[in-house]
Amino acid sequence: MNYRLTFNLFAKMLAGISVFMAVLGLGALIDAQMGEPRAIRAEWALLISATAGSLIGGGIWWWCRKPRKLFGRREAMLLVAMSWIGGAFLAALPFFLWAHLNFNPLHAQPDHPFLNPVNCYFEAMSGLSTTGSTILTDISAVPMSLLVWRAMTQWLGGLGIVVLFVAVLPSLGAGGKKMFQVEAPGPKPEGVLPGIRQAARMLWLIYLGLTITETIALRLTGMNWAEALCHTFATLATGGFSTENASLAHFGPGAQIVTMVFMIAAGINFALYFQVLRGKPLSIFRDTELRVYLMCIAVAAVLVIGSVYFMARPITTTAGQEVENSLSNAVQYGLFTTISIQTTTGFCNADFNQWPFLAKAVLLMLMFIGGSAGSTGGGIKVVRIWLTFKIMWAALERAFRPNVVRSIKINSRPVDPEMRLDVIAYVLGVVVLFGAGAGLYMVLEPADKIDFTTAATTSAATLFNIGPGLARVGATENYAWFTDASKVVMSVFMAVGRLEVFAILVLLSPRFWRGN
Amino acid sequence: MNYRLTFNLFAKMLAGISVFMAVLGLGALIDAQMGEPRAIRAEWALLISATAGSLIGGGIWWWCRKPRKLFGRREAMLLVAMSWIGGAFLAALPFFLWAHLNFNPLHAQPDHPFLNPVNCYFEAMSGLSTTGSTILTDISAVPMSLLVWRAMTQWLGGLGIVVLFVAVLPSLGAGGKKMFQVEAPGPKPEGVLPGIRQAARMLWLIYLGLTITETIALRLTGMNWAEALCHTFATLATGGFSTENASLAHFGPGAQIVTMVFMIAAGINFALYFQVLRGKPLSIFRDTELRVYLMCIAVAAVLVIGSVYFMARPITTTAGQEVENSLSNAVQYGLFTTISIQTTTGFCNADFNQWPFLAKAVLLMLMFIGGSAGSTGGGIKVVRIWLTFKIMWAALERAFRPNVVRSIKINSRPVDPEMRLDVIAYVLGVVVLFGAGAGLYMVLEPADKIDFTTAATTSAATLFNIGPGLARVGATENYAWFTDASKVVMSVFMAVGRLEVFAILVLLSPRFWRGN
Repeated sequence: MNYRLTFNLFAKMLAGISVFMAVLGLGALIDAQMGEPRAIRAEWALLISATAGSLIGGGIWWWCRKPRKLFGRREAMLLVAMSWIGGAFLAALPFFLWAHLNFNPLHAQPDHPFLNPVNCYFEAMSGLSTTGSTILTDISAVPMSLLVWRAMTQWLGGLGIVVLFVAVLPSLGAGGKKMFQVEAPGPKPEGVLPGIRQAARMLWLIYLGLTITETIALRLTGMNWAEALCHTFATLATGGFSTENASLAHFGPGAQIVTMVFMIAAGINFALYFQVLRGKPLSIFRDTELRVYLMCIAVAAVLVIGSVYFMARPITTTAGQEVENSLSNAVQYGLFTTISIQTTTGFCNADFNQWPFLAKAVLLMLMFIGGSAGSTGGGIKVVRIWLTFKIMWAALERAFRPNVVRSIKINSRPVDPEMRLDVIAYVLGVVVLFGAGAGLYMVLEPADKIDFTTAATTSAATLFNIGPGLARVGATENYAWFTDASKVVMSVFMAVGRLEVFAILVLLSPRFWRGN
Repeated sequence: MNYRLTFNLFAKMLAGISVFMAVLGLGALIDAQMGEPRAIRAEWALLISATAGSLIGGGIWWWCRKPRKLFGRREAMLLVAMSWIGGAFLAALPFFLWAHLNFNPLHAQPDHPFLNPVNCYFEAMSGLSTTGSTILTDISAVPMSLLVWRAMTQWLGGLGIVVLFVAVLPSLGAGGKKMFQVEAPGPKPEGVLPGIRQAARMLWLIYLGLTITETIALRLTGMNWAEALCHTFATLATGGFSTENASLAHFGPGAQIVTMVFMIAAGINFALYFQVLRGKPLSIFRDTELRVYLMCIAVAAVLVIGSVYFMARPITTTAGQEVENSLSNAVQYGLFTTISIQTTTGFCNADFNQWPFLAKAVLLMLMFIGGSAGSTGGGIKVVRIWLTFKIMWAALERAFRPNVVRSIKINSRPVDPEMRLDVIAYVLGVVVLFGAGAGLYMVLEPADKIDFTTAATTSAATLFNIGPGLARVGATENYAWFTDASKVVMSVFMAVGRLEVFAILVLLSPRFWRGN
């Protein structure tokens, strides 16, 4: 194990986070000094955190300078785990410092969730893992600069995931692998190759392009620049942190429509955007996963909208208003919720916890499915669900036609038995983790606070990086009421779900790469 | 497809069931005539059903006489499905006739569950599939001859399952295959071979031997002969129908101890009893599955007993009494419940629905695990759970040591990748079916009657052939309150779980047999 190189890269990652914090803190400080005077402790919290991050990063870098270049599987896994679990400590620091840097007794908030370091870590991990579960009971009372940082953690986490699963470790059935080989012909993609850097740079530019486009679009719908930026960060990373307690219900239908479009975009394999950039925009519809993903949204939306339209009570928005469940409202709220859950974003405009069982069951199923491989979306991933269905179907068919060997294909390429085993083992492993999480929350929480629906959807919402669940973690609720022990477990589950712990091995398996 | 032979065998199966009914009906009739006079419509219901079964069976047999001898996989699957799904109609007939053959207005029971044919079918399928879920609200009010028939459906179903999975289609990792080859050296076991008949006869004798032993043992604890016979039928088939509303709590600790011993025995692969008969009784402990099965009971029992011992309230028995949760009582009720659930029998002596969450969680996990392959127990089966853990572990290990190929073995024999895929696909398929069942009951039942715990444990209790679940299907509840639609779905799920629909293909896969 090349610890020196791993820690060297980890140090650079900490420095990178610190740079973002510093830029944000300085910018907000200048803005605050020029405008009306207000409490600037949030800006100082960011700047102190940036300094601390730089010092720690610099120290680690100095200690691990001039590493050997050898970078293998174990190093990659260690780095990835460290980046999220360690990075969340640094990302949590501004929240913690802000709550404690309060020297003005007039602004005392003795019950603020950020006073508890576990809450800060939970919030930071929720951001970096693009989950979007919050422990904040009153989001809009937090200063905007800190909300921007909170949104930015998602954006950084989302970028990290895309680069990781498309450029560094191309995912299941992703065009990523193909793209990669076009960009870097020659030797097999092992270790840190120039091709990876080039692919990562391309992805970064695509991500930046989508960010600029959505920010402008949201600004045009009436949000201010900071709000537009925060919601863009949350959308593209499929995170779901909002700057308002009412989430998207606080804003008009225009903002909701823009968000819907970009949520769908964020749930698509980013490798497909390369094909668009190469001037073959329609060829992406040949991708099996994309078609299944869009079909899945369409079918689920019809079921949810129908279920909401025919229910006997009005729709309650997350802003607390009751609106008639007319067809247009059912479409607006049903479609938005479907897209938000399927892409694992977790933005809300309606309290879907009050919807009929059918709608809730469909949404729960979508939580498991999630976005596409190589996107910022969480969940099991559309391609794995699709492959699992095909594998199961083939097994069932074999029962009465045992001599017919049917190859399973994805994007016209056969899926070998080893990979089939990996896919099914991954899906089963995740389902077991989901059950284990639900059981743990039932045990860790006092019996009068938790019910089975809450425990199960908490498990799904964190493991699949969604954000809201049902019952006591529903659209209008938050995670503040959980015990610290549960919050620590949830933080771990968010990282586990995000990094596909079980899948990294799939992608790194030599047989997965061999013969191509 | 050789329909003629399949229906011919189905006809013989119907005739066989009819013979058991006729013997039981005649015996009970003679007994009733000699003793004090009482309502004999139960006996007549059995005799009319036996006549009807014989006529239908005879008709089908006449229609399909002289079939070709070719009997392949598809024929076997069809026969098995027909035997349980069709057989349950015949087995339900006595219940239905008894309820309707009431010409004495003094004995009118206008609300009796058996007046509804769906209830009768549910009860018969629950018996034949050795589930033990009942729709009877007052079991002890049903005449004993009908209760014996109800218990006998389990016994017949259990025998069918053992013969099917040990002699005809040796199951996963079962000694059955080995045994079979010793009994019938020579050609591969395909089609109806004399070896199968011989193995089936041996199994039948073992089953009969266990039946006689347990009946005598239970008689000695103070049950009368009919009660002893009924509980023996329910124990050896891991069914769980009792003749009393309070289940085993009606009887003393002696009966409970005898039942525990024979429940454990019924959850063991019946092929292992061949080894015992061959004079190598200790060699069975070399069997991986048996060791895991016993270990599983031991660990679960410790957790359940500890959980019950430390809870802050007394134990409520299924007879409605409250007893102190002393160590001896915790052992008696905890151990009995653990064994009953792990073996998927479903006998109760305590209302475990009132136990702490830990105990309930352990019991829920045991529901999924179930008994051994080749036993009468249901569930996923111990050997599959064990293999799944090994496969997952190997996959996890491969993440950081991708070049180490580790073969997975069971009983010192390697498990090839094809079979690994089948095992994991089966487990995942069953978990998906479990979820689908829970969702269906949530949809089919009115929202004020069902909660998630009830729906989920109903799904587990029927699919895994256990009997009781938690909440509204707990130890002191019954299934009478469900809608007919739910009961039909449950009947299907009981058959699906019992016949391992997905696994039959595994066992029939030519690769599974090849190279041995």
